[in-house]
Amino acid sequence: MSAFEASGIGEECGVFGCVAAGEWPTQLEVAQVLTLGLVALQHRGQESAGIVTSNGATPPTYAAHKGMGLVSTAFAPEALLKLRYGNLGICHTRYSTTGISELQNCQPFVVDTLHGQIAVAHNGELVNAAALRKRVMRHGVGLSTSSDSELITQLLALTPPMEERDAPDWVARIKNLMSETPTSYSLLVMFKDVIYAVRDPYGNRPLCIGRVVPVSKMHSSGAGEEDTEGWVVSSESCSFQSIGAKYYREVLPGEIVQISQHGVKSLSVVPRPEGDLPAFCIFEYVYFARPDSIFEGQMVYTVRQRCGRQLAIEAPTDADVVSTVPESATPAALGYAQQSGLPYIEVLCKNRYVGRTFIQPNTRLRQLGVAKKFGALTDNFAGKRVVLVDDSIVRGNTISPIIKLLKEAGATEVHIRVASPPIRFPCYMGINIPTKEELIANKPEFQDIAGYIGAASVKYLTVEGLVSAVQEGIASLRQKDEVIGSGSKRVGHCTACLTGKYPVELEW
Amino acid sequence: MSAFEASGIGEECGVFGCVAAGEWPTQLEVAQVLTLGLVALQHRGQESAGIVTSNGATPPTYAAHKGMGLVSTAFAPEALLKLRYGNLGICHTRYSTTGISELQNCQPFVVDTLHGQIAVAHNGELVNAAALRKRVMRHGVGLSTSSDSELITQLLALTPPMEERDAPDWVARIKNLMSETPTSYSLLVMFKDVIYAVRDPYGNRPLCIGRVVPVSKMHSSGAGEEDTEGWVVSSESCSFQSIGAKYYREVLPGEIVQISQHGVKSLSVVPRPEGDLPAFCIFEYVYFARPDSIFEGQMVYTVRQRCGRQLAIEAPTDADVVSTVPESATPAALGYAQQSGLPYIEVLCKNRYVGRTFIQPNTRLRQLGVAKKFGALTDNFAGKRVVLVDDSIVRGNTISPIIKLLKEAGATEVHIRVASPPIRFPCYMGINIPTKEELIANKPEFQDIAGYIGAASVKYLTVEGLVSAVQEGIASLRQKDEVIGSGSKRVGHCTACLTGKYPVELEW
Amino acid sequence: MSAFEASGIGEECGVFGCVAAGEWPTQLEVAQVLTLGLVALQHRGQESAGIVTSNGATPPTYAAHKGMGLVSTAFAPEALLKLRYGNLGICHTRYSTTGISELQNCQPFVVDTLHGQIAVAHNGELVNAAALRKRVMRHGVGLSTSSDSELITQLLALTPPMEERDAPDWVARIKNLMSETPTSYSLLVMFKDVIYAVRDPYGNRPLCIGRVVPVSKMHSSGAGEEDTEGWVVSSESCSFQSIGAKYYREVLPGEIVQISQHGVKSLSVVPRPEGDLPAFCIFEYVYFARPDSIFEGQMVYTVRQRCGRQLAIEAPTDADVVSTVPESATPAALGYAQQSGLPYIEVLCKNRYVGRTFIQPNTRLRQLGVAKKFGALTDNFAGKRVVLVDDSIVRGNTISPIIKLLKEAGATEVHIRVASPPIRFPCYMGINIPTKEELIANKPEFQDIAGYIGAASVKYLTVEGLVSAVQEGIASLRQKDEVIGSGSKRVGHCTACLTGKYPVELEW
Amino acid sequence: MSAFEASGIGEECGVFGCVAAGEWPTQLEVAQVLTLGLVALQHRGQESAGIVTSNGATPPTYAAHKGMGLVSTAFAPEALLKLRYGNLGICHTRYSTTGISELQNCQPFVVDTLHGQIAVAHNGELVNAAALRKRVMRHGVGLSTSSDSELITQLLALTPPMEERDAPDWVARIKNLMSETPTSYSLLVMFKDVIYAVRDPYGNRPLCIGRVVPVSKMHSSGAGEEDTEGWVVSSESCSFQSIGAKYYREVLPGEIVQISQHGVKSLSVVPRPEGDLPAFCIFEYVYFARPDSIFEGQMVYTVRQRCGRQLAIEAPTDADVVSTVPESATPAALGYAQQSGLPYIEVLCKNRYVGRTFIQPNTRLRQLGVAKKFGALTDNFAGKRVVLVDDSIVRGNTISPIIKLLKEAGATEVHIRVASPPIRFPCYMGINIPTKEELIANKPEFQDIAGYIGAASVKYLTVEGLVSAVQEGIASLRQKDEVIGSGSKRVGHCTACLTGKYPVELEW
Repeated sequence: MSAFEASGIGEECGVFGCVAAGEWPTQLEVAQVLTLGLVALQHRGQESAGIVTSNGATPPTYAAHKGMGLVSTAFAPEALLKLRYGNLGICHTRYSTTGISELQNCQPFVVDTLHGQIAVAHNGELVNAAALRKRVMRHGVGLSTSSDSELITQLLALTPPMEERDAPDWVARIKNLMSETPTSYSLLVMFKDVIYAVRDPYGNRPLCIGRVVPVSKMHSSGAGEEDTEGWVVSSESCSFQSIGAKYYREVLPGEIVQISQHGVKSLSVVPRPEGDLPAFCIFEYVYFARPDSIFEGQMVYTVRQRCGRQLAIEAPTDADVVSTVPESATPAALGYAQQSGLPYIEVLCKNRYVGRTFIQPNTRLRQLGVAKKFGALTDNFAGKRVVLVDDSIVRGNTISPIIKLLKEAGATEVHIRVASPPIRFPCYMGINIPTKEELIANKPEFQDIAGYIGAASVKYLTVEGLVSAVQEGIASLRQKDEVIGSGSKRVGHCTACLTGKYPVELEW
Repeated sequence: MSAFEASGIGEECGVFGCVAAGEWPTQLEVAQVLTLGLVALQHRGQESAGIVTSNGATPPTYAAHKGMGLVSTAFAPEALLKLRYGNLGICHTRYSTTGISELQNCQPFVVDTLHGQIAVAHNGELVNAAALRKRVMRHGVGLSTSSDSELITQLLALTPPMEERDAPDWVARIKNLMSETPTSYSLLVMFKDVIYAVRDPYGNRPLCIGRVVPVSKMHSSGAGEEDTEGWVVSSESCSFQSIGAKYYREVLPGEIVQISQHGVKSLSVVPRPEGDLPAFCIFEYVYFARPDSIFEGQMVYTVRQRCGRQLAIEAPTDADVVSTVPESATPAALGYAQQSGLPYIEVLCKNRYVGRTFIQPNTRLRQLGVAKKFGALTDNFAGKRVVLVDDSIVRGNTISPIIKLLKEAGATEVHIRVASPPIRFPCYMGINIPTKEELIANKPEFQDIAGYIGAASVKYLTVEGLVSAVQEGIASLRQKDEVIGSGSKRVGHCTACLTGKYPVELEW
Repeated sequence: MSAFEASGIGEECGVFGCVAAGEWPTQLEVAQVLTLGLVALQHRGQESAGIVTSNGATPPTYAAHKGMGLVSTAFAPEALLKLRYGNLGICHTRYSTTGISELQNCQPFVVDTLHGQIAVAHNGELVNAAALRKRVMRHGVGLSTSSDSELITQLLALTPPMEERDAPDWVARIKNLMSETPTSYSLLVMFKDVIYAVRDPYGNRPLCIGRVVPVSKMHSSGAGEEDTEGWVVSSESCSFQSIGAKYYREVLPGEIVQISQHGVKSLSVVPRPEGDLPAFCIFEYVYFARPDSIFEGQMVYTVRQRCGRQLAIEAPTDADVVSTVPESATPAALGYAQQSGLPYIEVLCKNRYVGRTFIQPNTRLRQLGVAKKFGALTDNFAGKRVVLVDDSIVRGNTISPIIKLLKEAGATEVHIRVASPPIRFPCYMGINIPTKEELIANKPEFQDIAGYIGAASVKYLTVEGLVSAVQEGIASLRQKDEVIGSGSKRVGHCTACLTGKYPVELEW
Repeated sequence: MSAFEASGIGEECGVFGCVAAGEWPTQLEVAQVLTLGLVALQHRGQESAGIVTSNGATPPTYAAHKGMGLVSTAFAPEALLKLRYGNLGICHTRYSTTGISELQNCQPFVVDTLHGQIAVAHNGELVNAAALRKRVMRHGVGLSTSSDSELITQLLALTPPMEERDAPDWVARIKNLMSETPTSYSLLVMFKDVIYAVRDPYGNRPLCIGRVVPVSKMHSSGAGEEDTEGWVVSSESCSFQSIGAKYYREVLPGEIVQISQHGVKSLSVVPRPEGDLPAFCIFEYVYFARPDSIFEGQMVYTVRQRCGRQLAIEAPTDADVVSTVPESATPAALGYAQQSGLPYIEVLCKNRYVGRTFIQPNTRLRQLGVAKKFGALTDNFAGKRVVLVDDSIVRGNTISPIIKLLKEAGATEVHIRVASPPIRFPCYMGINIPTKEELIANKPEFQDIAGYIGAASVKYLTVEGLVSAVQEGIASLRQKDEVIGSGSKRVGHCTACLTGKYPVELEW
């Protein structure tokens, strides 16, 4: 697997929601759509999964199911059965957790308030979570989990004070919440028959909207409004295809969108502080997102390929062949090959059945290392100089045995080209990055990284190269006036983990 | 199984706590004691189980594990491993649940407050839960479960307002809670290095304290204070023997007891409204408790046997033999036999392997009814008139096929004698009783109950007979000044499900 | 639990078969009857379970399912589904196993022969298994399991040589098998549309036949032949009631009975060597069988009670109360109480939730011993002299902590009365008895067994007493001409484990 | 997934064996090597897995474990524990099964013979299995499974007759077996301290030998004989790398090789009938084998790439880009791209979390088809003419929705190029091919296959083209005298499923 795949670096989660159009019983089976949507976002979190549906009635009946592990593990047929009467719902897949009780941290979080139950699913990490927790607890609320999702839910319930006689103004409460925390959150809040889709003013985490149409019209441009069977909202657009939805648009940074059986309605766009650029996480492009997802009007795969091309320009190599560390580095490797004119080959063959280690490792097993995961396609590269494109070098302990394997199998030289700049700084906005000390780029060994990992040479993409590979596409789209759903006049990306420049003051 | 066993009537839960004496690492393995204690209370709830331990340090580290099903299912060895560093802890076993997410309702409930985590385990049902929920939600707190335990926890955190600079006065908060709800609760509240054991002013649910001593001194009267290895607190004393503890005393109605590594200390006794008697649930004697438990100084088995004797006095029978519906009615049946002078025999033999029904029932299976659960010991009663003592008749649908079975197998007459009065009213204090409409005593068929169930005659114990069978022992103990841990000057029991007289106003 | 329950002594298995009357589709759901029958025989083996059904067609289609653990674990609803088209079938529940692969040893054993598949289920142990295995292997057959069932199946296939053109004479083959091995076996052989029920000439293991009738006529004497819905054959008659069958008769020692949709037909009775008595295992009465089963015309419970009475005559005690070690010793204890005139009481209360030990035992836990399994009903016996009736003392390590518990809880004396003679010899006929060295009766400590286990006195039932308790009922029945299904002119029982006198030469 | 991946076509199994060098306790952990070897052969069978080890002593002790599902599911740590004392062993992974009891069919098959236990693992399918079964059953042997492995085992035990006094000549018995069945089998037979590795005279199934060396010397040419830690034998050489073994040689068609702690020894080569060529299954190259495996001196990946090149020569296309149906068709696609000069791109992105379908499919779901498995990388091919290389078209129902997906997403033309000839005939030698009726090449629709599946054009590789792509490498190697382990003077491959020409008479 690529450096990123091996690094354990990952998203905190993915969120997904669906509202069927029209009255119950609707044609669309919402529970099924939610499950398929979750499966399509599974790469954003494999630790636990949860779905909450509402029947939309007054008062509404909610049904919920959560479970540990993959969606397919967590959701047995009976679980789907109890969710089937919903005609709207939100769901969540979670990457990793800390805290006492694991299932408890699983989202969506549902609480009963004076005005009925609300459900919240959240992707991101509140930069000022500690201060907000203290504020909530000072009010006398006990927090039963360590998740930001519960914190957000309690904040929504808390202020302003609730009165029994009035209907609650959830939008005002969401705005109030947004005034208390600048980033990062892509948020789904379900109440009765409405889902509020919210993105923080910096747009740090992705969120986009799709329109469910008859499968036969999924790709046709002729699907009219009368064909709308429902609406979905998702961390990534890759989920739309698998449930039969057309890409509609992104939720804008700072925007609150209301989704109901009557359609999609933008309620408000909370502005950033003057002068601040948007700060969409650049690593969604580099690694996290699925390659067929679309951000800011461009396909992720294309951006990765551009990174490979840019890398070939910045760091050309005198070599015979170009290859990839499967699977996530492949677009960049193909880009590198195209730009450099070197032939693209495969050097490694993955054993897809190597899973959880059930064998107590002994010395031999440890020495074998990657050999039980990868077979070397020796004849493809024996006697040749190989350019191996990886998507990152995080700790430096994965690429090293692969280089060793290739060299032992006959490669005369192995040049490492990394399709992203070195990671040097922690992320406080939802990405689980190793500690500063663990990152190879902060270690003395980094001075001679090639020697350290046994490569003939090592070159990284520059920050400028990465930013231009990302933004070039947006610029060219803008010229053609095609940035679907981008809407924001200015372009900006968070590169904090590479540069240490965070979009907001951290001691906020 | 007896009528009660078949009725699904049951407790809401059992609570158990343990504090090791002295400093960490203590000799006592608290996690193990807690688990064994839970197993001994398993009859009070089989749906889920949970344990929370604290290492007692400043700030404390808590560890928790919860799971569905029996303790033995919910607690795998790894679960115990993560709990092992605690030197105090509380745990809970739960009977049944309503609400959205089942594991979520599982206790103990742990929340993070401004002053650290507290954990709460609760047996009972707050009569004014609905009003209290509303009050908490009006304050802006979202409630994530339907359990009273969460409600109690949030109430403890809520008022008076928390200030960061001060240490929290948990005892004051507990008293405040007690002023807001009269009954029913036996409560364990763990904070850092202390467990507060609390019983509501009516003493509706049981709670008692044991002293952990070396196993060799468990039954000896010579176990001195220097032998104390720790303290336990439990819904029932039957758990003490299985972990090696000596019965110490009951927690009094209204009492707050502090248990720490330094010992047991009574902090306060919150009084009842003037004129109100205690209202210990009489059905703990009749059915719920394990027969070897001790309440108010008397063994439950003995009370049940007295009920059988009293029944023989009130309702003598012209018959040949006395028998029981196994297993819970056996003490009463033996009491009836002793009092009446009729021989005690066994008529049914239980197949202990008949468990969860995995066979899709067809007509034949439904007709077979109890026959797959019980074998008739024909030769013991063929040609004889049988007095069959049961502990209750709840819905009337269990005893009927048993009578049929006995008659078909050769009994000439089957007389039913019920060792408790008819249940006619719902319980709002923690017992899961069928609806008024389901109770046989409220149906027209009750007029000719013998005819309805196919018995030669049916007689119930009177309410007066039951109360005297329960209180006679207490009175005689009092004369001998032996009421261990009763402490309360006056005696009183809740008979609401039999008489409709509730200990507190329900519209409280 | 009683000494026997704690000893791990047990049957090797139980067998059960069913044939529906008439043509397919029959009214009777054979797969369901088989499953219920197995559940009713579960006490004879809990390690694994298997069912094989046949549709009875030409050629027949067999369906099979086997699984480890209890029937309820091994048979999920899908398993039953695949068995549902059978209109006859045999099944098996197994106690324990040795050998390489556990599921492989699970019965019934099915093999494909030149003339189609046969299925075999076997209870017992062939005394000359080793010689027979050698003979089969010399013929060139590899044996894939260590079970006698496979051996029997291969022996049936082996001789005389098979010819493709002829139909096989299975009855001749069964007789041939019986000529090669004298005991012990109760055997079900299924071929196409017939079950052959076979009992060895000594009748060492039980086997009896029942007639399936409409549930409403199960106990009525008026169920005529036209009411027959099918036939069942079972190790014990206790299974008949749970599936709605009437007891029909025993299979006689040496008898081959053919059961088909057309009814039950005795084909042959293979005689014993002249002068040899039958040798029905006396421990079926003493411990193995369910108390409601009927052997030789008498109910097992009644025999156990008679053992208790006989024990009271042989070994009277100057004491205050009589009690039992629950649950299997209870009939004997009641018999003792009746004969002696002493009151019967309960001294122990079982925690039925104590199951598999998932807690790593430490010193405290080991010291607690039986305390976590049993609660002492102190008030029933404190200050009293107790006669405790157990069904056996096998290794002597179970009764000892119970005595300790009772004495510590206040019993002034504990006298042990054992309702069977000491076990001293191994069984080679299907019972899993500890090695000679492990048996307390063969140890030096046995000289002062009372002192060793801490009892005031210990007395055993004599072999003569046991035999007379067993045979007295048969004799009296014979006088009344009521020995249902016994048929055999003479009476005899195997007491080899008590006396060392085996029914056949062991070096056979 | 590629047409083959979707077709369910698959091997019947993979076999693997290992013997540690030297005396027990050897350095090599055989159980671990066997498990890793199985994992590396998992692509040859996912239904069940089994391992049998022997301690090699006199008499030997065998340990066995079998389980359903993937190796990682079937082998829990405890299973490995019981295998750990072996210093040789064989194992098996199985593709699919028919017959009554599934676990029962799981290999290796172990039987007890007069001379001790033998264990057999088998890959292939005996063309004359039916006749052989009859012969064995006529001898009086009952066969308990439908697997050829049991049949082989019983044949080995059967003839010539066994005598107790003599040691068995297993090699003579193996030769005898080979004289009774011409193909197909690659066989491992373990007896005590020896594994016999056997390949049928036609060499239909693969089998090769590796030498276990210190991991550090795995790829070095300098690993001398003194470095040998053990020997392994495997269906495919891809397993060698993952356990740290060097490729040693193929087992030749008809060869019997003895592997023991003392090394590898060729015992015999049973010849084919005069004039018959070898008949190694050509589909091992085309689809079954892992691309890094080596057959006849050439890497499978290279052969597949050559098939792609050959296809480009035979069926050039006027198009813009070349792509693959991931994953197995990728080498051929890259070969096609290289030969044609067209750029290679990716068009589909796989969701690797789509697993077992736990969702009850409704119309929408069925219509979505491949969309939930694959995301279209639209920007890569929109507006372009795509050559899509697949490895086969089996039923024709997989490629069709992929073509639809690509066209809807913007491809202007989709040309299908198939890197193997049409499959038209069944395989009787171990490959699970759909029935003749299901194969698209035998249907009327095949006349206009392009129209049927919606492609612009469809072209297949010719049989001659395939054979030359396979044999060209062998010829060139031969010139260079480098055919490692091929040894056979003449070259030949089984193409029966393409041509209907079977290597042996089927009515044999």
